[in-house]
Amino acid sequence: MINAIILAAGMGSRMKTDLPKCAFPILKKPMIKYILDALDKTIVENRVIVVGYKKEVLYGMLKDEKFAVQEKQLGTADAVKTAIPYLNDGVTIILPGDTPLIDSRFIDNIIKSHIEGENDVTICTARLENPFGYGRIVREKGKIKRIVEEKDATGEIKIINEVNTGIIVINNDYLKVAINKIDNKNAKGEYYLTDIINFTNKIGSHTLGDTNLIQGINDLYQLSIVEKSLIDSVLKQHMLNGVNIINPSTVTIGADVVIESGATIYPNSLILGNTIIKKGAIVGPSTELYNATICENVRCMESVVYDSTINKDSVIGPFAHIRMNAVIGEANRIGNFVEVKNSTTGFNTKASHLSYLGDATIGSKVNVGCGAITVNYDGKIKSKTIIEDNVFIGCNSNLIAPVTIKKDAFIAAGSTITDDVENEDLAIARSKQINKKGYARKYK
Amino acid sequence: MINAIILAAGMGSRMKTDLPKCAFPILKKPMIKYILDALDKTIVENRVIVVGYKKEVLYGMLKDEKFAVQEKQLGTADAVKTAIPYLNDGVTIILPGDTPLIDSRFIDNIIKSHIEGENDVTICTARLENPFGYGRIVREKGKIKRIVEEKDATGEIKIINEVNTGIIVINNDYLKVAINKIDNKNAKGEYYLTDIINFTNKIGSHTLGDTNLIQGINDLYQLSIVEKSLIDSVLKQHMLNGVNIINPSTVTIGADVVIESGATIYPNSLILGNTIIKKGAIVGPSTELYNATICENVRCMESVVYDSTINKDSVIGPFAHIRMNAVIGEANRIGNFVEVKNSTTGFNTKASHLSYLGDATIGSKVNVGCGAITVNYDGKIKSKTIIEDNVFIGCNSNLIAPVTIKKDAFIAAGSTITDDVENEDLAIARSKQINKKGYARKYK
Amino acid sequence: MINAIILAAGMGSRMKTDLPKCAFPILKKPMIKYILDALDKTIVENRVIVVGYKKEVLYGMLKDEKFAVQEKQLGTADAVKTAIPYLNDGVTIILPGDTPLIDSRFIDNIIKSHIEGENDVTICTARLENPFGYGRIVREKGKIKRIVEEKDATGEIKIINEVNTGIIVINNDYLKVAINKIDNKNAKGEYYLTDIINFTNKIGSHTLGDTNLIQGINDLYQLSIVEKSLIDSVLKQHMLNGVNIINPSTVTIGADVVIESGATIYPNSLILGNTIIKKGAIVGPSTELYNATICENVRCMESVVYDSTINKDSVIGPFAHIRMNAVIGEANRIGNFVEVKNSTTGFNTKASHLSYLGDATIGSKVNVGCGAITVNYDGKIKSKTIIEDNVFIGCNSNLIAPVTIKKDAFIAAGSTITDDVENEDLAIARSKQINKKGYARKYK
Repeated sequence: MINAIILAAGMGSRMKTDLPKCAFPILKKPMIKYILDALDKTIVENRVIVVGYKKEVLYGMLKDEKFAVQEKQLGTADAVKTAIPYLNDGVTIILPGDTPLIDSRFIDNIIKSHIEGENDVTICTARLENPFGYGRIVREKGKIKRIVEEKDATGEIKIINEVNTGIIVINNDYLKVAINKIDNKNAKGEYYLTDIINFTNKIGSHTLGDTNLIQGINDLYQLSIVEKSLIDSVLKQHMLNGVNIINPSTVTIGADVVIESGATIYPNSLILGNTIIKKGAIVGPSTELYNATICENVRCMESVVYDSTINKDSVIGPFAHIRMNAVIGEANRIGNFVEVKNSTTGFNTKASHLSYLGDATIGSKVNVGCGAITVNYDGKIKSKTIIEDNVFIGCNSNLIAPVTIKKDAFIAAGSTITDDVENEDLAIARSKQINKKGYARKYK
Repeated sequence: MINAIILAAGMGSRMKTDLPKCAFPILKKPMIKYILDALDKTIVENRVIVVGYKKEVLYGMLKDEKFAVQEKQLGTADAVKTAIPYLNDGVTIILPGDTPLIDSRFIDNIIKSHIEGENDVTICTARLENPFGYGRIVREKGKIKRIVEEKDATGEIKIINEVNTGIIVINNDYLKVAINKIDNKNAKGEYYLTDIINFTNKIGSHTLGDTNLIQGINDLYQLSIVEKSLIDSVLKQHMLNGVNIINPSTVTIGADVVIESGATIYPNSLILGNTIIKKGAIVGPSTELYNATICENVRCMESVVYDSTINKDSVIGPFAHIRMNAVIGEANRIGNFVEVKNSTTGFNTKASHLSYLGDATIGSKVNVGCGAITVNYDGKIKSKTIIEDNVFIGCNSNLIAPVTIKKDAFIAAGSTITDDVENEDLAIARSKQINKKGYARKYK
Repeated sequence: MINAIILAAGMGSRMKTDLPKCAFPILKKPMIKYILDALDKTIVENRVIVVGYKKEVLYGMLKDEKFAVQEKQLGTADAVKTAIPYLNDGVTIILPGDTPLIDSRFIDNIIKSHIEGENDVTICTARLENPFGYGRIVREKGKIKRIVEEKDATGEIKIINEVNTGIIVINNDYLKVAINKIDNKNAKGEYYLTDIINFTNKIGSHTLGDTNLIQGINDLYQLSIVEKSLIDSVLKQHMLNGVNIINPSTVTIGADVVIESGATIYPNSLILGNTIIKKGAIVGPSTELYNATICENVRCMESVVYDSTINKDSVIGPFAHIRMNAVIGEANRIGNFVEVKNSTTGFNTKASHLSYLGDATIGSKVNVGCGAITVNYDGKIKSKTIIEDNVFIGCNSNLIAPVTIKKDAFIAAGSTITDDVENEDLAIARSKQINKKGYARKYK
């Protein structure tokens, strides 16, 4: 069986955050989750995460994972040792938890290369222009002999530019024996996993072409560089798939967003979470989507949509805010300065300006006038508003929930509605206009 | 006479769009329109566009152009052949329809070079670091002998890095004879226009310095790269002209936008269409303008303006929306959460907060109170509101159109106005306040 | 004593602006102010700014500085001459006023190098790939012999790539004598400060490593490049300090903004002036802050905050506008389409939607209903609204200032309140609802 150990025990002090390093989010998704998502697409069948610093945070984020606990940070070999009880027989790939750009194809390749090479251990190496800080690969006649950490390196070793990436594939039988032979007699006094190669000659190596994939994260500046790589590759893939992204360097799209070909994204937009954007939809400029479903041919400009669905052919914004499980029906118009919260609308309904629709069930062909409000809160409890098909709600009117406005009813502008309105009735609650001759002079 | 043929028959399948490739928009303007706009500034006097795939789309976009129709995509020579009947005597430049960065100076230069060289045909070539995919230029003693397409190229030819750009200038007399001699005996079975050189020795060449100019577009990722070049050059030109653009890599400005020196653009703005921004105006941040005229010293922040004019010294936003032929007068204040649609205002009028002004004619020195609304729609028809000079509209009032509020009148806050108000009258339509002793306890 | 002369007399005609060049703002702060701020952190004790073109503008911007006036632009030596009367005995560093990236550490280093070298004059030089336009450093046996301006350079001198940066350190005794010996017999007919080296052999030089620091600004395109360097270095420093900036190339942050580690900035935000953002705060996306104080754990999305304070644990936006010395209390909710101007709120108060709070003093645990408005302007004067603790303001109600709503009072939705409301009273000012049977048919 193929196993994986992900090393996530570190605190990442240079991040200057309260979170354990591997839990820190990139585009609202924890760093380690990128690695787990990549592993989901590989031949790895069993995995264990080694945690330590603030392990409860990782437990909370990753409900369905297995964890091994490293109590003290004594080095990578010590971390791996804690994970051994969770491995099945076979082969294990060991991955750092802070390299979120790693991809599934690479993981499969190095594992296959290890198995085909009949190695005890296979080291993933890379050639870096500036190898400073990395463990150097010392070869003799082409075979790996040792890995020397920066702090232990002599001048002659420091100029070697082939480095250890921290990714290792190993036979479990060999791992269980060799891990106990590693000591901590080195400059840092740590148990280095890299010393695992010292007890066999069956050492393979796999050189990474795209060193970008193993870019680690030690501070928030490095995180921003990895994040940029991630965004660029997400954007490029969408464009090649037929998504038209205008001025893409101003657009941020998360890795889990699904966009169909034929959609268009305008500048300065932020699209994260499990958002889905369908064919013909136009999103942006300056729009934020999070866990939103934007259906065919929807236009959504200068707006914010969270955890909600906009059905096809609707127009949202500019300056609209849709949230908390709202479901906007087909061919709706939700216009400027309108908030829709935890409400549903039917077909071809309009709320074009300055409205608040909260906790409401709204039918088809309803016209919500400018400034009309569902008054869902009385200071104690929240109540529901029901507006049936073909209702006309006049401007600046208040619908005091709980209240039902039945089919074809008409609410006069400026009315505060406290009682239900029956089918086809007109409800009015306002004073008659009085014009006072010449009185305006008094006020000016 | 100087003629041009623009090749726009292709579908561009890698764009994954329903549009013919050359009709695909870059910053809301069809790709081919950039080339036609460049041609407008050249010595070319007569032009014809060869269309094929979804030709009706191009007919609709380009009303005043001449079109030749290529029924089947049999190759570039076949496309050119369909255009011959539309040419006048003289010389013709043949241009691909998917290289929108081409500029007028270059077009004039290659035509002049062709004429001065007394060539039958002049090939525009370029030297590329990576020539893969392009037709290679095979020279003997410095003279062009053949052009070999990628698919027909041997290893020795593949290493040639001088390539055909697809731009050719040709004498029409020669063209008419030679075009019929081209066959389709090649790897792709197409009639290649490049074979046109095989029937003369009077072949000139013109090497393009800035290969950026002929960057073609085959997918939406390539389109984004061309778009970026276009935006960068537009922004740089504005800055050199004295426009202050803050953090320009976050700003998107279209090619047809006119900005006077002394204007300032703040970050994250999107400015497209035939927008004009005058001296001293400040636009942005996070502002979208489309076909907007922004006059001297206007400030317009976090707002959206479509098809409208803002006269000088007015302040718009943040979070305002001006649209559909609105004309805002001089020294107005249109503030946050205000929409103005299809309305005009006079001098020094204010609508500072939470208003909707639709289908209204508004005079000078009018004060539109917070939350005041023109109720222009009754469920059946839209009606007009007239507000004369020096009127004061109280907060949260409704003006139910059609209605006229005459000079110097005063509308009390919270009134719904259904009837006209005369000069200097005060109109009020609200209930008297009643304070119920201790009743608040019941609600909390 | 260590003195500094800052040369700021030029008009900068290629900027195409009415401002003197050194007064032109970068991120709303005058270019020269960056240099003065850097000088504040150096060993320089006395400084004088040489002004000329539109000197009044600089006087207005820089109240506490000393100025020397150069009446005509006769060259840099002439400019320095006007400053001599303002110098104390000792050493002077002469700095151009248009290199805002200069940093304090560099200034201290070159002054120390000058003093330790016991030079009469020390020239700051740099090696440029493209030295065109700069004065070239001519050395003999390693010692600087002459500085030759572009216009006076022969071919052999033009290929020298070591250039004069315009920064000079000089002994005042030497300066006073040598400055009078400089003539204007050169191609431009100007008095060049660089000729100051011609009257001594005690010439030192200091070569600048990071040529970015002395990047000058002659047009708004060059300004944008310097601005970009500035923004990038500000952002990087914040990230290294533990600020999480998402997609930083879309974010603009000014040099004087203070951000604590543990804060997060979302994309497309613009943060300028003396803004302070504290630990745990989340700002953005698409948010503009200017002179704002954002306290611990505040969230502020798609909003604009000017000259105001948001106390800890409050949530602002999306689409909120806080301005003019507003102070939002702790744990408030200021939601979408809400403007707060020149008002204060207490603890745990909410104004969640479509409100305007202007010139108001609002207590704790107040609920401001959707669409509720403080009517602070009657067409003549602005008045204050007082809302005490635990008040409930119903939706779409108007509070006509001056007015006081006392503790625990309740305002019914849709009421226009003209008179004070006492503790625990309910105030209501609206008409009773009438339902007219079947009347809706008439309207549709």
